[in-house]
Amino acid sequence: MQNRKLVVIGGDAAGMSAASKVRREHPGREIVVFERGPHTSYAACGMPYLIAGMVDSPDRLIARRPEVFREKQQIDVRIRHEVVEIDLAGKRLRVTDLDRGEGFWEAWDDLLIATGASPVVPDVPNVQSDGVFSLSTLQSGIEVLEDIEQHPPRTAVIAGGGYIGIEMAEALLERGIDVSLIDMAPQVMTTMDPDMTEGIVEAMRDAGVHVFLNEKLERIDTDGDGRASSVSTDKRRLDADIVIVGLGIRPNSDLARDAGIELGESGAIRVNLRMQTSAPGVWAAGDCAESFHRVKEQPAFVALGTIANRHGLVAGTNLSGGDQEFPGVLGTAITRFRELEIARTGLSEKEAGDLGIAYRTKTIDARTRAHYFPGAAKVRVKLVVEDNTGRLLGGQIVGANGAGKRIDTLAGAISARMTAEQLVYLDLAYAPPFSPVWDPVQTAARTLA
Amino acid sequence: MQNRKLVVIGGDAAGMSAASKVRREHPGREIVVFERGPHTSYAACGMPYLIAGMVDSPDRLIARRPEVFREKQQIDVRIRHEVVEIDLAGKRLRVTDLDRGEGFWEAWDDLLIATGASPVVPDVPNVQSDGVFSLSTLQSGIEVLEDIEQHPPRTAVIAGGGYIGIEMAEALLERGIDVSLIDMAPQVMTTMDPDMTEGIVEAMRDAGVHVFLNEKLERIDTDGDGRASSVSTDKRRLDADIVIVGLGIRPNSDLARDAGIELGESGAIRVNLRMQTSAPGVWAAGDCAESFHRVKEQPAFVALGTIANRHGLVAGTNLSGGDQEFPGVLGTAITRFRELEIARTGLSEKEAGDLGIAYRTKTIDARTRAHYFPGAAKVRVKLVVEDNTGRLLGGQIVGANGAGKRIDTLAGAISARMTAEQLVYLDLAYAPPFSPVWDPVQTAARTLA
Repeated sequence: MQNRKLVVIGGDAAGMSAASKVRREHPGREIVVFERGPHTSYAACGMPYLIAGMVDSPDRLIARRPEVFREKQQIDVRIRHEVVEIDLAGKRLRVTDLDRGEGFWEAWDDLLIATGASPVVPDVPNVQSDGVFSLSTLQSGIEVLEDIEQHPPRTAVIAGGGYIGIEMAEALLERGIDVSLIDMAPQVMTTMDPDMTEGIVEAMRDAGVHVFLNEKLERIDTDGDGRASSVSTDKRRLDADIVIVGLGIRPNSDLARDAGIELGESGAIRVNLRMQTSAPGVWAAGDCAESFHRVKEQPAFVALGTIANRHGLVAGTNLSGGDQEFPGVLGTAITRFRELEIARTGLSEKEAGDLGIAYRTKTIDARTRAHYFPGAAKVRVKLVVEDNTGRLLGGQIVGANGAGKRIDTLAGAISARMTAEQLVYLDLAYAPPFSPVWDPVQTAARTLA
Repeated sequence: MQNRKLVVIGGDAAGMSAASKVRREHPGREIVVFERGPHTSYAACGMPYLIAGMVDSPDRLIARRPEVFREKQQIDVRIRHEVVEIDLAGKRLRVTDLDRGEGFWEAWDDLLIATGASPVVPDVPNVQSDGVFSLSTLQSGIEVLEDIEQHPPRTAVIAGGGYIGIEMAEALLERGIDVSLIDMAPQVMTTMDPDMTEGIVEAMRDAGVHVFLNEKLERIDTDGDGRASSVSTDKRRLDADIVIVGLGIRPNSDLARDAGIELGESGAIRVNLRMQTSAPGVWAAGDCAESFHRVKEQPAFVALGTIANRHGLVAGTNLSGGDQEFPGVLGTAITRFRELEIARTGLSEKEAGDLGIAYRTKTIDARTRAHYFPGAAKVRVKLVVEDNTGRLLGGQIVGANGAGKRIDTLAGAISARMTAEQLVYLDLAYAPPFSPVWDPVQTAARTLA
């Protein structure tokens, strides 16, 4: 196995985690990584905070540069190299050197596909104009930052009220820009239930964001130079010196599909728990691959940095002769709008209903600290449990001041298949600066137990 | 059952939780509570913050007053009534009305003992002098506050570096007092391992607290009026206009013992998982009673408000004809010294060793947020796992800015009997303002998996 040449397509979290793991286990093995962009191993999640000015340089978001991988780990990382074809039968890749414009074939013994995901681009007029951006790669974040610095906008429109939309609203407000956010859904954060998202919209409006729900992006209008100047929805026209499109992402799985590798229903590459694809010797990890959902007990497409890192570690372990399974995801996620922390895990009420599960649910309002302690903030917790058994299926938390990371307690309890009653009696930490004597997640569980 | 008269001894967290639960289930039942102090249902844990001036009135620490229990819940709470004898055979109590100085017998069908705990008073000269205080009841906290306001101290000595000692050091510093803290152990916080407590002492010294370890309290010296003026250890004399003694607590179990009710090795009342004592019809809950330790799998004495509330809920459920077991404790606890959050759960390395368990342990340093995110603070995490199985036995966390409540993730994982490897693959929440992509508790688990 140590003589098998490993080739990795994609030099971000999943690909480089796997390559690094293989290197630690097999010091002499040949490892080649092709990355079509100019960067490796960066913190894409940090981009809104870079754009906000809270992080002072794009360099700070880079965990490890290509030259460091090459020199310290003897991993042959080739940036600006795009893989355009996988030849499964020949065990080789067709690669384009983007700077030289040259193509070549590269052989592999083991192949890891870690091609990531790309933003969904809506089919509306002028979406490719100057001043219209999505966020995906670090390069895309740098381009937004440079554009803002070169053409300081007075107004911005964000299309999409998901994580990117909410984080970019905070970032652009921080820059003193007048921000509008539109979403065709009747709520923001559609991974959460409506009763949990009202407070988010309220906080955004209080901060001065113009939030328009149930409105569909119809076109982007441009000025004489072909630069975005306004956005039209089905109900209004909004001035927009800059437009951010955050309408979700789709897996970069075309390369795999074209080679005959099986995709899942989500469109992402189907893998088993060891991260093997349908093709022998071919593995997939990160945003381009599916995961097993621990509660749904079926494949799911969850594209997040945490998952990509775990995928990479599992793939790397198995590629080095280990035997590791990835136990799966819960769709845990967290974000914030300024002080308001927003988190979810497991099934929302809507997801439980869509799956035909008989469930009960409860939403409670509590405080993050003892009621008498300075800084005790409001927190709303929603739990979803299986109706007959009381087994925890999902949780959502919205609140300030330490509310959000409480989702981890729920993620652990759901993974352990605990009931609401078992959560009530967990020995969680209490002191007045940290919690009421019944932690808010336990207060919610009590109402269901 | 609804005709059985319930008498409760002790009107704080455990007793009133149980009484309230019984009332909810049995609206017409006779419930009498005897409380020797003047207060019911108060937040004893808030006293250091009351003394610090962060909480503006003792009233804010009272969750529910006796008259509210009487009027709203028809619970006959009699404050300033001390129970001095339990007559098991006669199913009655001897009670002293402290204000009238009169005694009487009160009959019961069911009895709940919730007599709490008292501070350990060291056997040293002048420990009963004016200006020397322990913290236990709300009344004791009010007395400290009044003393500080009437005799503003320049200097204070705290004996004992446990939770109370550390919290009172913060409180008295907040008042502008010059604070010394002595402990006979070579470390503070003896429920934690030494490698985790160095940073606590450093933070205290940086804040100006004079910390003296390996020093034994030998005597309290008094001035002409019989008021404390200094404290002598085996190594030095320290000026002390006020002295706080925080040397731990012992359960108030004499009343039960004298009646022939079985105590545990800890000296607290032995109970089963339903909170029943050895005497039929007699229950115990709160700081006077033992708990089952989920990892040690043996009885333990853990006197904390969280546990008292859970004891009370379990006892109250069973006293109302329900069938509820208390699954037990992990010894989870949290406190802080100013910005530094301090938390522990399960077994420390020392406890694992004392129990003869073959264990492995690892201590790691990480950050509470993405390294590039403003406010990313240092956090140290220690995990203890069973050697062969990798099963999590305990965890300790010290760090700023959101470090502490991460202990709940560990408490949940330990309760679910997870291994370090299972913790690594939990789907915990990540975003740059909240965590690195591997949460610190998972980074620690990775080093052990």
